[in-house]
Amino acid sequence: MNFPTLSDIRAAHARIQSFIHRTPILTCTAIDEIAGCEIYFKCENFQKVGAFKARGAANAVMKLSPEERTKGVATHSSGNHAAALARAASVAGIPSYIVMPSNAPEIKKKAVKGYGGEIIECEPNLKARETTLEAVVARTGATFIPPYDYMDVIEGQATCVLELLEDQPDLDIVMAPVGGGGLLGGTALTAHYINPEIEVIAGEPAGADDAFRSFHAGHIIPQTGPNTIADGLLTSLGKLNFELIQKYVDDILLATDPQIIEAMRLVYERMKIIIEPSCAVPLAALLANKERFAGKKVGIILSGGNVDLGKLPF
Amino acid sequence: MNFPTLSDIRAAHARIQSFIHRTPILTCTAIDEIAGCEIYFKCENFQKVGAFKARGAANAVMKLSPEERTKGVATHSSGNHAAALARAASVAGIPSYIVMPSNAPEIKKKAVKGYGGEIIECEPNLKARETTLEAVVARTGATFIPPYDYMDVIEGQATCVLELLEDQPDLDIVMAPVGGGGLLGGTALTAHYINPEIEVIAGEPAGADDAFRSFHAGHIIPQTGPNTIADGLLTSLGKLNFELIQKYVDDILLATDPQIIEAMRLVYERMKIIIEPSCAVPLAALLANKERFAGKKVGIILSGGNVDLGKLPF
Repeated sequence: MNFPTLSDIRAAHARIQSFIHRTPILTCTAIDEIAGCEIYFKCENFQKVGAFKARGAANAVMKLSPEERTKGVATHSSGNHAAALARAASVAGIPSYIVMPSNAPEIKKKAVKGYGGEIIECEPNLKARETTLEAVVARTGATFIPPYDYMDVIEGQATCVLELLEDQPDLDIVMAPVGGGGLLGGTALTAHYINPEIEVIAGEPAGADDAFRSFHAGHIIPQTGPNTIADGLLTSLGKLNFELIQKYVDDILLATDPQIIEAMRLVYERMKIIIEPSCAVPLAALLANKERFAGKKVGIILSGGNVDLGKLPF
Repeated sequence: MNFPTLSDIRAAHARIQSFIHRTPILTCTAIDEIAGCEIYFKCENFQKVGAFKARGAANAVMKLSPEERTKGVATHSSGNHAAALARAASVAGIPSYIVMPSNAPEIKKKAVKGYGGEIIECEPNLKARETTLEAVVARTGATFIPPYDYMDVIEGQATCVLELLEDQPDLDIVMAPVGGGGLLGGTALTAHYINPEIEVIAGEPAGADDAFRSFHAGHIIPQTGPNTIADGLLTSLGKLNFELIQKYVDDILLATDPQIIEAMRLVYERMKIIIEPSCAVPLAALLANKERFAGKKVGIILSGGNVDLGKLPF
């Protein structure tokens, strides 16, 4: 496959920038002292729909042909991609069809409905999600926009680190969490283009470490039975994503759930901002491997802030 | 008494600015839509020590004479002023003595100790706090820096809205919470100097409404038996503070605890930032009186972000 070029990624940024926030970069002296390095947090928790997913979804929708637009978009997701796609469709004035498991949290359904997305419920298993999605696509002619294993989505996620490196060009290391690999793949690609000297390091939950194992095995090892509080990172790596990770990611570091919760608490208490557990994974991985980052300038993408406030782990 | 002039307040800002953050101003489309007006949030929850109190304490400490400095500063407080004064003293390299009730939360004691403050415990009542403080001052010669009824503290708090109006000059209304009146008094004074057309409106918890009652009675009515989640706003108005409020505050609006909690949740969910309950009071008061703010540009000072994450009201 041909991956997006740097000018493709810049074009994606120009395409979506009026539909997303240019999120701020925050620093925190107290956390720097604890970490022993300089950290620049790119705050995608402040992004539209509360997560970086707004970028990929917007890019995919805006690249549809006029004919495709009339028929809308579809996906299956119970997470941030569902809301992001419904919002992008709404902004573009086209329909969206979101297949969600019948046991999806009410708040996630509400977000999709709030953006005018049509929810199609299915049994809570992967098979039912896929067959239901196929039926929806057959009925409506909508374009299926997958959450991460899709070039236009990766190209959109790749715009995040573009902004980070524009605002803070002298980083030694860039970190992102890894689930399906949309954000990580896009991040690694952009960082490679802008400055191949920058190390790209992923943080992954020890309880869902398929990317770590796949990275070291040299082939995709699917995730089975994930068990972690980082509920945005449960899925297996996508194919395109794995290819990018093999080429451009320098390392994947693991963090246990207690380390993830501790990092999350640190961000809440010291930075006074809200992040979801998945979002705390890179910082947790950094703090578990401080010697590796000593004295460096590290950019960390805070991926999202959609958390159930009634169920905080502290 | 002679209140600070605008040039005094500007001088205070120059005096403290290398010791505090120039906090950002955030906006939120979703909350604007709910509120029916344009709100500019001045984020003192991101301030040093997590609250605007860093300003007043820094100003008071930096104005000490060289001789006063050698003997340090003292106060009695179990809240943000304690940490703010200990930090300001630490930055200035002078001792601080903080009288705290024996039942003060461990986290508050830890913050003071973290800044090198010496904690002197006393029985948990006002009489014990006052006599213990007197003994500390007699023993050490330290200067007593009260939390709000003190000119240099008010002058420091007055710098917050100075920044807000520099960054966002076209506000119709400025709002702040009111407890002792340090922030509100300073805010009203600065706003009056910069543009007397700006309305200054306070938000106060209905369960601790002494400022509301004092404002309408024309004399100070002390707070007895406060009952509200807004634990930073339990105290009675100070004398200097009341004088400023009578002169320069246009109105005080009340919010009930359910309204405060709802406003707090809105900020957490929509803005992804952490605020303490007291900090949500102006927004709660605005939302309870929407017609009054319709279509206006409103600056709200988010006063602080120090909250026990294990005890969130949702």
